[in-house]
Amino acid sequence: MSTSNIITLTTDFGISDPYTGMMKGVILSINPKARLIDISHMVKAGSINHAADIIRDTFSFFPSGTIHIVVVDPGVGSKRRLIGIEAEGHFFIGPDNGIFWPVVNDFKGTKIIHLTDKKYFRPMPSPTFHGREIFAPVAAHLSLGVDLASMGQKINDPVKLESPAAYEKDGILYGQIVHVDHFGNLISNIYNAKLKGFLKSSGLTIEVGNLIIKKLDNIYSDVEKGELLAFINSSDLLEIAVHLSRASEYLETGPAEIIGTQVKIRKLL
Amino acid sequence: MSTSNIITLTTDFGISDPYTGMMKGVILSINPKARLIDISHMVKAGSINHAADIIRDTFSFFPSGTIHIVVVDPGVGSKRRLIGIEAEGHFFIGPDNGIFWPVVNDFKGTKIIHLTDKKYFRPMPSPTFHGREIFAPVAAHLSLGVDLASMGQKINDPVKLESPAAYEKDGILYGQIVHVDHFGNLISNIYNAKLKGFLKSSGLTIEVGNLIIKKLDNIYSDVEKGELLAFINSSDLLEIAVHLSRASEYLETGPAEIIGTQVKIRKLL
Amino acid sequence: MSTSNIITLTTDFGISDPYTGMMKGVILSINPKARLIDISHMVKAGSINHAADIIRDTFSFFPSGTIHIVVVDPGVGSKRRLIGIEAEGHFFIGPDNGIFWPVVNDFKGTKIIHLTDKKYFRPMPSPTFHGREIFAPVAAHLSLGVDLASMGQKINDPVKLESPAAYEKDGILYGQIVHVDHFGNLISNIYNAKLKGFLKSSGLTIEVGNLIIKKLDNIYSDVEKGELLAFINSSDLLEIAVHLSRASEYLETGPAEIIGTQVKIRKLL
Repeated sequence: MSTSNIITLTTDFGISDPYTGMMKGVILSINPKARLIDISHMVKAGSINHAADIIRDTFSFFPSGTIHIVVVDPGVGSKRRLIGIEAEGHFFIGPDNGIFWPVVNDFKGTKIIHLTDKKYFRPMPSPTFHGREIFAPVAAHLSLGVDLASMGQKINDPVKLESPAAYEKDGILYGQIVHVDHFGNLISNIYNAKLKGFLKSSGLTIEVGNLIIKKLDNIYSDVEKGELLAFINSSDLLEIAVHLSRASEYLETGPAEIIGTQVKIRKLL
Repeated sequence: MSTSNIITLTTDFGISDPYTGMMKGVILSINPKARLIDISHMVKAGSINHAADIIRDTFSFFPSGTIHIVVVDPGVGSKRRLIGIEAEGHFFIGPDNGIFWPVVNDFKGTKIIHLTDKKYFRPMPSPTFHGREIFAPVAAHLSLGVDLASMGQKINDPVKLESPAAYEKDGILYGQIVHVDHFGNLISNIYNAKLKGFLKSSGLTIEVGNLIIKKLDNIYSDVEKGELLAFINSSDLLEIAVHLSRASEYLETGPAEIIGTQVKIRKLL
Repeated sequence: MSTSNIITLTTDFGISDPYTGMMKGVILSINPKARLIDISHMVKAGSINHAADIIRDTFSFFPSGTIHIVVVDPGVGSKRRLIGIEAEGHFFIGPDNGIFWPVVNDFKGTKIIHLTDKKYFRPMPSPTFHGREIFAPVAAHLSLGVDLASMGQKINDPVKLESPAAYEKDGILYGQIVHVDHFGNLISNIYNAKLKGFLKSSGLTIEVGNLIIKKLDNIYSDVEKGELLAFINSSDLLEIAVHLSRASEYLETGPAEIIGTQVKIRKLL
């Protein structure tokens, strides 16, 4: 598999400081033809789970050969490893802290390289900004055709990520809210396949904190303005929304406690 | 008219979620040479008027042949049509909900195509994310030279947008505040031509809520720091500002009620 | 020195309004091959010091020949000059209000051109948006190979910027907090070289408002979660941080008063 010249960036750097701009400058200094695409710089500060969800849901929409840099790296400069991954025809560069675990776990034949060859780093790298000093130049060299395998040693023990999975117990399917999006929609960790396998052909009730929903809809406008709905979203996950409003504000849970709110699904026979 | 490989994006998706990144990935998967330019992803959620104003004010600064995707689509997945427009040498892709009405209304010879050829959509499109599933691939195919007319049927009845226009009554010119920008400047819906036609050579007083302004200036620094001014802005609209401060905070109107505040202009003979 | 086709943008325009998009459209209309990179559009409104720090810290990570547009321009349309600068193999375009002073001051052989040739401006430029009307087209023409010197007259008296520098007095090194970044880290104006020259081989105590730190660390994770640390950051400046938290919230200073908080460094023999 060869790399394309497309490099995506996902970080928790925010959009005010020039940190992402510096990374782009470093990449363009090595490969002036690199195509740089921002996925998000608003990952919650230090949230490995948030970054892992974003890159898992997004990478496959890019062309084969795309290089994805993800920098959510609270341990920057410590002994944690820096890794490059080849999976499903895509390349991933970042710290070995679990951000790539969903990608590694989902696909067979994944190659993981511990990046140790300093030839591809900036000289005398600052220990507190490996995004600029190491991940950016490594990605740029990859995009020029350097073989990932030549940049370090193969490893087989990447850091795993504990993330809550939906589970069935005593005839109830339990999940939780893992994300509130820009529109206030509540995204759960319940995949369509899991839900369908649990329900088979029966109806359902969904409880999320104080909210109760008694059917699955397809699109927001299946219900009236201001009404609750649940549906399988475009990332194949169960989502709870309010048509033309913010579901997050209908939950009585305080805004800081929404993530982790339990979702309980009962069969209706 | 042929398309260029420049594609702009205007949405209400915000900047935290990967939704825009997914659209860019889809476009680059079809046309790896597409040039992607963000106009804004901070359109107020579901605000068709806000999106319509932005694209009307901005498109003409881009080269002929540019393709503009606009996704503010509260009816996503419903029976509303998906359209492609050719107007003034530019192309526009989005839902038929009025976002393109100012463009359609302003220019003669506009062609509007109801996008129905599924060959240009992603297979089995998710019903809640037509931006990624339909508008992105349609724009990418257009940028590769596919003829817009071949993508569906010509229509002549696009959805119109009701938007408040300035009007004269009993010798007074009435308008309203339609936007507060990043600097707190108050943008009205009164175009320079309308104002000049009303005033001819006379002076004026401008009333906006509790604010009164007695002349037109040219630039912010025509007045002292902290002083109010009114002038014709770079989009040819009457704007009310405070030099080096936020005019929006000088209005006694609550922040949520500023949009729609009446602007009254009287002639001073 | 010749220009590349890379153009960076740094403004205080925010990300909601289409102002930056308009500038990009103008550039691409002149040079469709220009590569456009955003550094930040979240410079504090009108803050010349903030913009000057960002461009000083960031420009050198880009390839030689890069053109940097900086638009923080509270005097837009007034008699202030518009300038183009060549320094260290990079080009800078913006208002002559001090934003480029750190660059001009640091490097020998800098050329500064007062941009007066209207051939490179948009026709009939709006007086309140020189970013779109003048800086964008000037940068685009530069990127096409037009000689900067041919665009106006050489000047030697650019506007200087008063910015607080660290200084030693009575055996104490005084600096101040000049920036709070996205992570709540406190960035001082004390450069590594200054600090090392002051300390030589002695230890130190650092006082910042109510916070006291007694050693220099290297990376965030040198201390436990929730603990204060001080270190030399990736821009070579003394930074005060809290591991996995926001140092800005540990200061008893109100959030609006953090910038300017004194940093006092004493030698510990």
